[in-house]
Amino acid sequence: MEKSSKNLNWKEKLHEIIYEADTKEGKLFDVVLLFAIIASIVLVMLESIESFDEKYHYFLNVSEWIITILFSIEYILRVVSIKKPLKYIFSFYGIIDLLSTIPKYLSFILVDSHSLVALRALRLLRVFRILKLARYVGASNKLLVALRASRAKIAVFLFFVVIVCIILGTIMYMVEGEENGFTNIPKSIYWAIVTLTTVGFGDIAPQTPLGQLIASVIMILGYSIIAIPTGIVSSEMTKNHTELDSNTQSCKSCATENHKDKAAYCYHCGSELNA
Amino acid sequence: MEKSSKNLNWKEKLHEIIYEADTKEGKLFDVVLLFAIIASIVLVMLESIESFDEKYHYFLNVSEWIITILFSIEYILRVVSIKKPLKYIFSFYGIIDLLSTIPKYLSFILVDSHSLVALRALRLLRVFRILKLARYVGASNKLLVALRASRAKIAVFLFFVVIVCIILGTIMYMVEGEENGFTNIPKSIYWAIVTLTTVGFGDIAPQTPLGQLIASVIMILGYSIIAIPTGIVSSEMTKNHTELDSNTQSCKSCATENHKDKAAYCYHCGSELNA
Amino acid sequence: MEKSSKNLNWKEKLHEIIYEADTKEGKLFDVVLLFAIIASIVLVMLESIESFDEKYHYFLNVSEWIITILFSIEYILRVVSIKKPLKYIFSFYGIIDLLSTIPKYLSFILVDSHSLVALRALRLLRVFRILKLARYVGASNKLLVALRASRAKIAVFLFFVVIVCIILGTIMYMVEGEENGFTNIPKSIYWAIVTLTTVGFGDIAPQTPLGQLIASVIMILGYSIIAIPTGIVSSEMTKNHTELDSNTQSCKSCATENHKDKAAYCYHCGSELNA
Amino acid sequence: MEKSSKNLNWKEKLHEIIYEADTKEGKLFDVVLLFAIIASIVLVMLESIESFDEKYHYFLNVSEWIITILFSIEYILRVVSIKKPLKYIFSFYGIIDLLSTIPKYLSFILVDSHSLVALRALRLLRVFRILKLARYVGASNKLLVALRASRAKIAVFLFFVVIVCIILGTIMYMVEGEENGFTNIPKSIYWAIVTLTTVGFGDIAPQTPLGQLIASVIMILGYSIIAIPTGIVSSEMTKNHTELDSNTQSCKSCATENHKDKAAYCYHCGSELNA
Repeated sequence: MEKSSKNLNWKEKLHEIIYEADTKEGKLFDVVLLFAIIASIVLVMLESIESFDEKYHYFLNVSEWIITILFSIEYILRVVSIKKPLKYIFSFYGIIDLLSTIPKYLSFILVDSHSLVALRALRLLRVFRILKLARYVGASNKLLVALRASRAKIAVFLFFVVIVCIILGTIMYMVEGEENGFTNIPKSIYWAIVTLTTVGFGDIAPQTPLGQLIASVIMILGYSIIAIPTGIVSSEMTKNHTELDSNTQSCKSCATENHKDKAAYCYHCGSELNA
Repeated sequence: MEKSSKNLNWKEKLHEIIYEADTKEGKLFDVVLLFAIIASIVLVMLESIESFDEKYHYFLNVSEWIITILFSIEYILRVVSIKKPLKYIFSFYGIIDLLSTIPKYLSFILVDSHSLVALRALRLLRVFRILKLARYVGASNKLLVALRASRAKIAVFLFFVVIVCIILGTIMYMVEGEENGFTNIPKSIYWAIVTLTTVGFGDIAPQTPLGQLIASVIMILGYSIIAIPTGIVSSEMTKNHTELDSNTQSCKSCATENHKDKAAYCYHCGSELNA
Repeated sequence: MEKSSKNLNWKEKLHEIIYEADTKEGKLFDVVLLFAIIASIVLVMLESIESFDEKYHYFLNVSEWIITILFSIEYILRVVSIKKPLKYIFSFYGIIDLLSTIPKYLSFILVDSHSLVALRALRLLRVFRILKLARYVGASNKLLVALRASRAKIAVFLFFVVIVCIILGTIMYMVEGEENGFTNIPKSIYWAIVTLTTVGFGDIAPQTPLGQLIASVIMILGYSIIAIPTGIVSSEMTKNHTELDSNTQSCKSCATENHKDKAAYCYHCGSELNA
Repeated sequence: MEKSSKNLNWKEKLHEIIYEADTKEGKLFDVVLLFAIIASIVLVMLESIESFDEKYHYFLNVSEWIITILFSIEYILRVVSIKKPLKYIFSFYGIIDLLSTIPKYLSFILVDSHSLVALRALRLLRVFRILKLARYVGASNKLLVALRASRAKIAVFLFFVVIVCIILGTIMYMVEGEENGFTNIPKSIYWAIVTLTTVGFGDIAPQTPLGQLIASVIMILGYSIIAIPTGIVSSEMTKNHTELDSNTQSCKSCATENHKDKAAYCYHCGSELNA
């Protein structure tokens, strides 16, 4: 039933290299992609530093074109090598892959136009390329299982925190008033969140004795209730979870992942996998 | 013994819709109420933003009247549909429901008077309507059980934190003195709480080397003892707790809640429930 | 072997009232003492607020004399009613009880003298009266057992935190330098502690890109390693600890406490207890 | 097979004193070294305080020479007493020991030159001597085992935190812009880390309502996800770990440590140990 790696046609070979990491070429492809993603993010950051952008504008421009063309080729190859391209194109990663390549091309069309400001925003979309890195974090499965199991409790906790901040923020607005920086209720709620989460920027701080007393209560409350999410996750982690299968294979027809280690057929669409 | 839903008189029907969430109408009522509460809170917030209030004063005024009338109708229906209205009226939620409707009516009586400032404060009481949302959080029961079990230990911990802050605040008042912002002992204690809970506003900060040394000790202490409430709650959560019954039924006579899933009679007053 | 409460001589009666909380009179004595301690601390705080001290100087002065005389009487009764007074006088609580009464008497001797500044410091010693409250926290035993068991690990953790702060503070002194507020190494270490413990006053903040990068590493480190003391205490708390006996009896001869509930003789000196 | 302590030649005796802590002399050597390290670090700190350096320059200079000569003697003895000196010289501690002694000698050569600033930096290397203290912390083994076991999960967590900070920092750069202090993307990411880790310096703070809303989300996120590393370490600590052997013996040939308590031969090079 199994085909030897030699007998695969070019599309199947490409699929194995791009979507899987079992072969030597597949691993090399992934490492190159990894560095390209990191390089593209570093470029976005450097471009935002004005003094750097002025000095090395030409270098940044060329580098971005290289990265953009690389990502474009990758995108085309991904579309070509899969059996059901539309499923990939409209998948979460498909959209991110496309959005990663667009901004630089738009700058080509819109050059010397007045829409440079909007373009700038589009360019920043490239930072989402970092989400591609999520593909390399197979070990996060166990963590996610524990978090998913405690989802309901954490939601209740967050709901409680938000309500407490709304009530305490409103009280602080009444106590401190506009003259001490608590200019309106949303800002007071923002301050209550800053304080309860023990961040404490200090841009707004209570001035009246009563305000400082209430602030003390908020801080001690925030200091204590952090025990709640911690307790939830700790107890969930202490339980035994069964190991999840982690396999880098990806179905050639529908791009489904997370196949069992010994799977011969896709659990989603039933087409044959390279065992 | 059980009556069919069709045979209930209007009072009983109303009670089922308003106080319970077993039927389709009951669920719809709850969802509408939920949105009305959130809308009313958003209105209070928007009103406190001066620039917004100036622009959209008419819109805010009309919206508040709509919400106020809706809550008034709800309040009247709640009083009418229950067998023992006084018990509801003087219950915690009964008082909040009443206080939620009053402020706008008072603004009608007191219009053009000098008591607009005090009125403003009364309006803010409506933020407590948010507590009504607690009704929808049945999943919080387990959390509360764990917290209640560790109540004594957490009280001891908070007592310890407060004593440490009083002693350290007094020491800092002696070390730093009034010229560095530690103007009196209560303010120094406030600073000690800000520091121990790792909030750190920075409005007051030690200037002398000795003060900074003591501050370092306070910070490391605060950073370490946060482990105590966390340890308490974690160990409590890790224990097995029996599931609590959660049922949306509410007694028609006395408004008692938390009935067992199969309960046919109110555990509090003994009157029959809709099974 | 047991004497009836009626047959006790006045010293034994006094001992039972002051040192124990089994009888009605003993409980009343404790509650009165509790309020006297809290009142005395509030007085110290109020006195430090200049505006309050100017207005109500006479009231504060009289109140302090009343409290001081009350504590003096209590101290004398404690010394008189115990069989081995020296053991009490030189015990931890004995010294605190004495120090609580001294400051006001010294103000009597030193009135109109030039040593008012030193006196002020002595007055503040009264805040240590709060430590008397520790007597009422019998429930803290379990917590202390868990903390004592994890003492060694927490010491290693704190040692590690201090070393990390010394190294990182020194690096930041080299990177940021004196012009950005990192004026010397101790101050840089202080800043590193402020940052690692997630307090973040903001009185000193890195200005150079490299300094901000290192600061980011410190912050993420501090955010992660807080898991260590929490993990230590959580795992210690999760273990089963045997219940400790908590009994308010105190030996008439040597003032030893923590007797077993059914103890008839002092476990420390062997003299008879009121069973 | 075992040689009596009396029959050891001077090299073997020296090795036992310097590298091990089983004998009385070995313990004394370690305590003296400990104080010398702490003294040298305190000297580096004091020297960095300008006002102190001006006053006590002579005292600091002499003290540093004493410490430097002591460390030089120690270094020579370490090299002489070990069988394979090159292995020690190029080991981690060997390099630190050498770097600890160099700076003061360089100041002798470079005196009155312009390279005093670079020299200053070299001197600070001595702060790494503090790492020698790690030798005394045998109790940290258990902690390290738990941390090593949860290494992968914590790496995933940190990776997740960094990605979240990059994305949120970029969004905040777009929302707040340069006029509110978010001058470029790296600075915005720095701010996101400051906020997510609940440090909150306050040197940069969001000014726009939308920015404050996003900041609130970041803060509540940071407040909640601190539960993840805590949960990981707690669950790891709760597991039972087998005790590790901790023995102060060090191989005379290759300086390998961590031998089993009853080991007679080095587990690394096979040469005989002093049992």
